[in-house]
Amino acid sequence: MKVIYVDNNATTKVAPEVLEEMQPYFSEYYGNPSSMHSFGGNVAGKIREARQKVAALIGATPEEIVFTSCGTESDGTAIRAALESNPDKRHIVTTRVEHPAVKNLGETLSKRGYRVTFVPVDSEGRLDLDYLHQNLSDDTAVVSIMWANNETGVIFPIEEIAQKVKDQGIVFHTDAVQAVGKIPMDVSRTGIDMLSLSGHKLHAPKGIGVLYIRKRTKFAPFMIGGHQEGGRRGGTENVASIIGLGKASQLAREHLQARGYERIRKLRDKLENTLIAKVPHALINGDRQNRLPNTTSIAFEYVEGEAILLMLNEYGICASSGSACTSGSLEPSHVLRAMGVPFTAAHGSIRFSLSRYNTEEEIDFILEKLPPVIARLRELSPFWKEAVRAQSSKLRA
Amino acid sequence: MKVIYVDNNATTKVAPEVLEEMQPYFSEYYGNPSSMHSFGGNVAGKIREARQKVAALIGATPEEIVFTSCGTESDGTAIRAALESNPDKRHIVTTRVEHPAVKNLGETLSKRGYRVTFVPVDSEGRLDLDYLHQNLSDDTAVVSIMWANNETGVIFPIEEIAQKVKDQGIVFHTDAVQAVGKIPMDVSRTGIDMLSLSGHKLHAPKGIGVLYIRKRTKFAPFMIGGHQEGGRRGGTENVASIIGLGKASQLAREHLQARGYERIRKLRDKLENTLIAKVPHALINGDRQNRLPNTTSIAFEYVEGEAILLMLNEYGICASSGSACTSGSLEPSHVLRAMGVPFTAAHGSIRFSLSRYNTEEEIDFILEKLPPVIARLRELSPFWKEAVRAQSSKLRA
Repeated sequence: MKVIYVDNNATTKVAPEVLEEMQPYFSEYYGNPSSMHSFGGNVAGKIREARQKVAALIGATPEEIVFTSCGTESDGTAIRAALESNPDKRHIVTTRVEHPAVKNLGETLSKRGYRVTFVPVDSEGRLDLDYLHQNLSDDTAVVSIMWANNETGVIFPIEEIAQKVKDQGIVFHTDAVQAVGKIPMDVSRTGIDMLSLSGHKLHAPKGIGVLYIRKRTKFAPFMIGGHQEGGRRGGTENVASIIGLGKASQLAREHLQARGYERIRKLRDKLENTLIAKVPHALINGDRQNRLPNTTSIAFEYVEGEAILLMLNEYGICASSGSACTSGSLEPSHVLRAMGVPFTAAHGSIRFSLSRYNTEEEIDFILEKLPPVIARLRELSPFWKEAVRAQSSKLRA
Repeated sequence: MKVIYVDNNATTKVAPEVLEEMQPYFSEYYGNPSSMHSFGGNVAGKIREARQKVAALIGATPEEIVFTSCGTESDGTAIRAALESNPDKRHIVTTRVEHPAVKNLGETLSKRGYRVTFVPVDSEGRLDLDYLHQNLSDDTAVVSIMWANNETGVIFPIEEIAQKVKDQGIVFHTDAVQAVGKIPMDVSRTGIDMLSLSGHKLHAPKGIGVLYIRKRTKFAPFMIGGHQEGGRRGGTENVASIIGLGKASQLAREHLQARGYERIRKLRDKLENTLIAKVPHALINGDRQNRLPNTTSIAFEYVEGEAILLMLNEYGICASSGSACTSGSLEPSHVLRAMGVPFTAAHGSIRFSLSRYNTEEEIDFILEKLPPVIARLRELSPFWKEAVRAQSSKLRA
């Protein structure tokens, strides 16, 4: 069966050009870049190139790029480094809608003597900026706020926030895992001190990430060992994946420059506009004005998201009910709860996240299959029957 | 030029069978194993298989295997988890000859209120077991000792040490990065609580490692985020590399069962015996009785190791002057210094580390090229001239 993959915020296909670039570095040029011999040294040269390409994608200099193993490592490293570099400060500011890598770390740190403020969002997923700024103080060591939300795609005004935070002498970190490669960015023109990105969200392989650390930012390594990454991250370099991430960054940059995301945005808009027109009681979660071009989170009221996913799965359609990192839990998404999405809508929310590999035929296929799925499930849903009954009695009244 | 790669303790070639097994998981079956859809779920099944294969190699159960990004991460996680789980204890015991991942972490922790004991070794690189046991106390939170040394290949009596440490209720961790796959082991029959291994030392790719955590060992995750690895390590699984490490573990186990290391041992012995016979003032560093079968560290007195390496490099021979993780520094190896190897010998020490891909022809080629290299370099060496003069005047006396 053909797979229709619209779960690109969970993970992406490695681009064929990326895999091709990585290929020789497994069994042919497998030297350790730290070795004295030229067999290792040649590899070091390729890593330098990859570092330049990643830097170019986000507007950094190559020396500001530290390769890590994933977004989670980058997030944890950034926040812990900020705390360690500011040992007198015990306050952390983040949001209620962060990825578990930041949210769960915040909760853990709050049990270890740190005070953690989780800034709320409104019903559209927009950050309460007043609350944020009112809660900054001399005791605040770090502010960590995601650039774009993984579930709704809502984009926060990171440049604006970063500048205000920086003006108060507080370290600013952003988890930009979902934003990098999907929207243009130039960190050099912002107040961002540290930024996390993840390879497997932009068509590089899983198991490679980056922490951008602005020049002169105080830092303490999380992974202590060899001299790699300028002493900022010990451990033998993940050579093939670093080279792959370099290529993926170059492709993402070209795609952004060619405005390739406009095509993706049109497909996404067609998908969501048609669905809310065709399916009654279907709502878009999150601010439609400030959103990633590839993401839509749609609440189909009075049905179970997991049931929808299972039925879509039968057609080879891969979507998601929220973050893959929290799947398996029966709790509704913490992001939608923070937005105050009602229980009956949050439980029936599906995220579609597109990539440059999706086609109009695929979107049409989803549009053909999904509305009957919702209708069938609603026929089985006690909540739906009750809602319909309530509505018709209201109409009669 | 043909490459003669005898630097396998730095990193290894990815076995062709391993690369083949990984291939489909980049661009074809690229699902996130945490996803609800079967496209991701199928990948989760392959990860389960890989976990079983790694467990089988070291005698663990699959639930005791946590995938990490490298040996350095595994070491850091183990030591920090032991400290966090024993917050009343402030003492760490390790050795003077550990890999930087443990040595540098120990030094960092000693600046943060922990007391760290570095157990010495004798001139053969054997651990001072009396010193070790005398230094254990009620305040000791963790003992971390490598299974085999990366520079000399010397094997420590880990089973014996682990049992004694465990008998005192202290957590025992071993960095087994160089030992796994080269000597048989069965952790279930030992007192080891945690063990680190690294994929790229056993023909899996770089960027994947494992921390073995014995059932019921108290643990606190280092990387906090999603529910992955049973809540013991957040972050999307490095799918292709995990599958590769599974295959590499299976190959290593078969190789051990077929006593494939006997062939490697014979090649190593031929290399070192011929060299010390042919080259005057050449000494083997470390206990020849208890040593990895693939490793030899040879001191060529009165010459510079880096000069030897550069000349070998001209012939395509890739060896090392010590750990790749400390290369680039002008300091002689901390391992050889801890053994009391004299300055003139430590500086001229070369490590050859073989793998199953090395052939007798390659060893013969090294034996043909290396002795004249040493002779040429000694002609240029003021130390050598002085040593020869001193010796001849001694003979005259």
